[in-house]
Amino acid sequence: MPIQEGDFVLIQVEDKRFLKRITKGFNLSYKKRTLKFEDIVGKEFGTLVNGFYLLKPNLETIILYGFKRKTQIIYPKDAFYIAFRLGINKSSTVLEFGIGSGALTAVLSKLAGSVIAYEVSPEFYKNALKNWDTFGLCKNVKAINQDFMDADLSGREFDACFVDVREPWLYLKKVHSVLKNSTMCGFLLPTTNQVSRLLQEMDGLFGGVEVMEILLRRYKPVYERLRPEDMMIAHTGYLVFGMKIM
Amino acid sequence: MPIQEGDFVLIQVEDKRFLKRITKGFNLSYKKRTLKFEDIVGKEFGTLVNGFYLLKPNLETIILYGFKRKTQIIYPKDAFYIAFRLGINKSSTVLEFGIGSGALTAVLSKLAGSVIAYEVSPEFYKNALKNWDTFGLCKNVKAINQDFMDADLSGREFDACFVDVREPWLYLKKVHSVLKNSTMCGFLLPTTNQVSRLLQEMDGLFGGVEVMEILLRRYKPVYERLRPEDMMIAHTGYLVFGMKIM
Amino acid sequence: MPIQEGDFVLIQVEDKRFLKRITKGFNLSYKKRTLKFEDIVGKEFGTLVNGFYLLKPNLETIILYGFKRKTQIIYPKDAFYIAFRLGINKSSTVLEFGIGSGALTAVLSKLAGSVIAYEVSPEFYKNALKNWDTFGLCKNVKAINQDFMDADLSGREFDACFVDVREPWLYLKKVHSVLKNSTMCGFLLPTTNQVSRLLQEMDGLFGGVEVMEILLRRYKPVYERLRPEDMMIAHTGYLVFGMKIM
Amino acid sequence: MPIQEGDFVLIQVEDKRFLKRITKGFNLSYKKRTLKFEDIVGKEFGTLVNGFYLLKPNLETIILYGFKRKTQIIYPKDAFYIAFRLGINKSSTVLEFGIGSGALTAVLSKLAGSVIAYEVSPEFYKNALKNWDTFGLCKNVKAINQDFMDADLSGREFDACFVDVREPWLYLKKVHSVLKNSTMCGFLLPTTNQVSRLLQEMDGLFGGVEVMEILLRRYKPVYERLRPEDMMIAHTGYLVFGMKIM
Repeated sequence: MPIQEGDFVLIQVEDKRFLKRITKGFNLSYKKRTLKFEDIVGKEFGTLVNGFYLLKPNLETIILYGFKRKTQIIYPKDAFYIAFRLGINKSSTVLEFGIGSGALTAVLSKLAGSVIAYEVSPEFYKNALKNWDTFGLCKNVKAINQDFMDADLSGREFDACFVDVREPWLYLKKVHSVLKNSTMCGFLLPTTNQVSRLLQEMDGLFGGVEVMEILLRRYKPVYERLRPEDMMIAHTGYLVFGMKIM
Repeated sequence: MPIQEGDFVLIQVEDKRFLKRITKGFNLSYKKRTLKFEDIVGKEFGTLVNGFYLLKPNLETIILYGFKRKTQIIYPKDAFYIAFRLGINKSSTVLEFGIGSGALTAVLSKLAGSVIAYEVSPEFYKNALKNWDTFGLCKNVKAINQDFMDADLSGREFDACFVDVREPWLYLKKVHSVLKNSTMCGFLLPTTNQVSRLLQEMDGLFGGVEVMEILLRRYKPVYERLRPEDMMIAHTGYLVFGMKIM
Repeated sequence: MPIQEGDFVLIQVEDKRFLKRITKGFNLSYKKRTLKFEDIVGKEFGTLVNGFYLLKPNLETIILYGFKRKTQIIYPKDAFYIAFRLGINKSSTVLEFGIGSGALTAVLSKLAGSVIAYEVSPEFYKNALKNWDTFGLCKNVKAINQDFMDADLSGREFDACFVDVREPWLYLKKVHSVLKNSTMCGFLLPTTNQVSRLLQEMDGLFGGVEVMEILLRRYKPVYERLRPEDMMIAHTGYLVFGMKIM
Repeated sequence: MPIQEGDFVLIQVEDKRFLKRITKGFNLSYKKRTLKFEDIVGKEFGTLVNGFYLLKPNLETIILYGFKRKTQIIYPKDAFYIAFRLGINKSSTVLEFGIGSGALTAVLSKLAGSVIAYEVSPEFYKNALKNWDTFGLCKNVKAINQDFMDADLSGREFDACFVDVREPWLYLKKVHSVLKNSTMCGFLLPTTNQVSRLLQEMDGLFGGVEVMEILLRRYKPVYERLRPEDMMIAHTGYLVFGMKIM
């Protein structure tokens, strides 16, 4: 189906990428090249126009180039791994708290049946909702602007949980109380001090504990001079996973 | 629900893991400890019995500890990233060829509506089917024991494709012809020589090309002596992604 | 001994570093702080003045912050490894060609008895000499502004060799002819294509061949929030080493 | 000069390496191949005999294949970096304590004028001395079988220091008192907890503090199938460096 007014298009020119909604008067200049509304509408995705590729956005490019960030996002490299590692599927209800800009939520919602997501900051909460709304994501997510500690979850049971807050150890007992047996709980933490503290506090509540980090190293896609990029993201966070034990 | 006869259980003792089907007469010895059928049946997942944790298997542990391998598998760290990077969802039909032991297929099938999967080796094909059957996976997968080159796909259009064969460049034109515009095609290749060759041949057929590798570094989960594992898997393969252009 | 006029000082303020020669009228501003000539002269190295640490430069900081670069330098992380891997000591005469900005030469000269260094580009050659002269380095180096291919080395024998040129395979036979038996020859190459080509051509001339890369990952030195830096240098080059065989 | 009885030879067969002293009756079998004393003596280093390369050992291969280990060694990748980072040269006197198997000492001694090395364990001390003696290393090293804390160093001043003990913070004030101003002190620590503790205690004594780790990733040296090794050493230790401040 050809590109229409109002569509989002991932525009790639040389190694630069822009995620743009195509509305009347749209105009993108890059070096000496220009791309206008009229050049785009009616074209098929995948067309090359005046040095600009018109590509269809996907979940990764939406998160990286389309989401507004009020705080550090969970990168796709981490979010994709987390979502599968939680062992969820279409019959799962997932608990998440500390949703930040809503990037992980958008990934979880693709695999899960439903997601219940808590965010205490009104600013982050509104921003996440707007990110999802802009791109038509997270229809199966119920977001709540509240500290998870204050949530009334009596009688609820979740199939998995992910926690992205500064002091996750404060919430461990409550998390444990609302998870089904042997379900997975994950955490993202930027510092080794936090990881140490969390491991100490998980003892007796979660078993099969694992700690890891995921590194994504990109290469310049040039066939006769194949080599890694000069710089890479060296750290986003440590991932910690454990299964609820009794 | 308590563990029943016939269930698979992920048994962890110290830092060793075993994925076992629990049938009558089951008996696992580790150092001086023993775990028997009678110790397991009727227990809740998440219970600690005599130093053995009885954990519920998930997709990652099933692939790593449960799948029989007739060839190198695509590791979960790569498979999870691939599945999301292909930009698929429940309305997508995905093409895969070179399915090997069926690990990636099992991951793709969780996100996609359906998967059409080709494998030329009868031995790999049978093994993959058995892996899926054992763990009740891949109900939405149609596997075909045929070289993708010989597949009759006239009139078919796919939403994404993943290729894991030694010489993917031989298949590029056929792949291109059965993909919808601007959909993603991915490749896994172990050597830099193959990546160079593939990049050269993708030119003009696929745009927005990216090459990367994903490294997973594990830490010993000991709070007062937090440190990376001594050894890690240093290489599984290079990932290449491109969007079909016209 | 206190800092004198004309000395080089490594000035660190927060996490910024400057390598400066302290001459009359010297003046460094950083945010709201200022450091002047009079603040420095007569102080001991290691003193903290108005938020600026006055530190003594060493070989690494001289290369990173003091050397002028006309081309990509060989980074200290690589140079330090290379120097020892070449198996040289005070009785060794080392051959180097493609000296670029002279960073590796400065490192080799610390371990070797003497270094003979060729550089074909007059611009690079002059810049390297100036770098060494500025910091009083490379007294035991004989640098020659000539393509190694044109060098008259009849009867000479070297104890080790390092090559940093775009097409090292063109020089292999000549290198082989001027090395003592079982001595080490090293190469730095940015692309995998070059490494493949070099390996192919080394066959029969060099044995015990090894290929590797060295990654340096820095951490933020904050005790209560220990974590890796956000970004790192992901690639400088592949190192190749082989011993001359007969 | 041809190989003589009593020489050490680095023998490489396929990708296996052995560092052996060649004495009468020497006999090495690998798969179906055999290498005998008579095959070796009188040959030049660099010769290929019956599939075995006869190579000359160097500092790295001596440490990796020749040193007896009573404890974890400091790997060459780390030792080479440390030696240069300490900013030492032939006029430097270096202090080291916690010498373990003596690997770093052997590297430091190549760059420094002299090394004073303390090791509290009699077993490690004797082993290190034997390692050095076997390979004729460390002639400029004075090793002392004593805890550094008990060392009488009144009036001594060192140009650099390296510390490899479990609780380096206990020694910081004494180290500080025997170092010249603005000289470098380095530490190797396996866990993040130790790094945090050390950073906290270095405050006020050492400036320009850096923390890093060095990763060495090897590739299979096969030109038409270039790829990283499957496994790598993922962790040896964190390096910490700081300059003495006043």
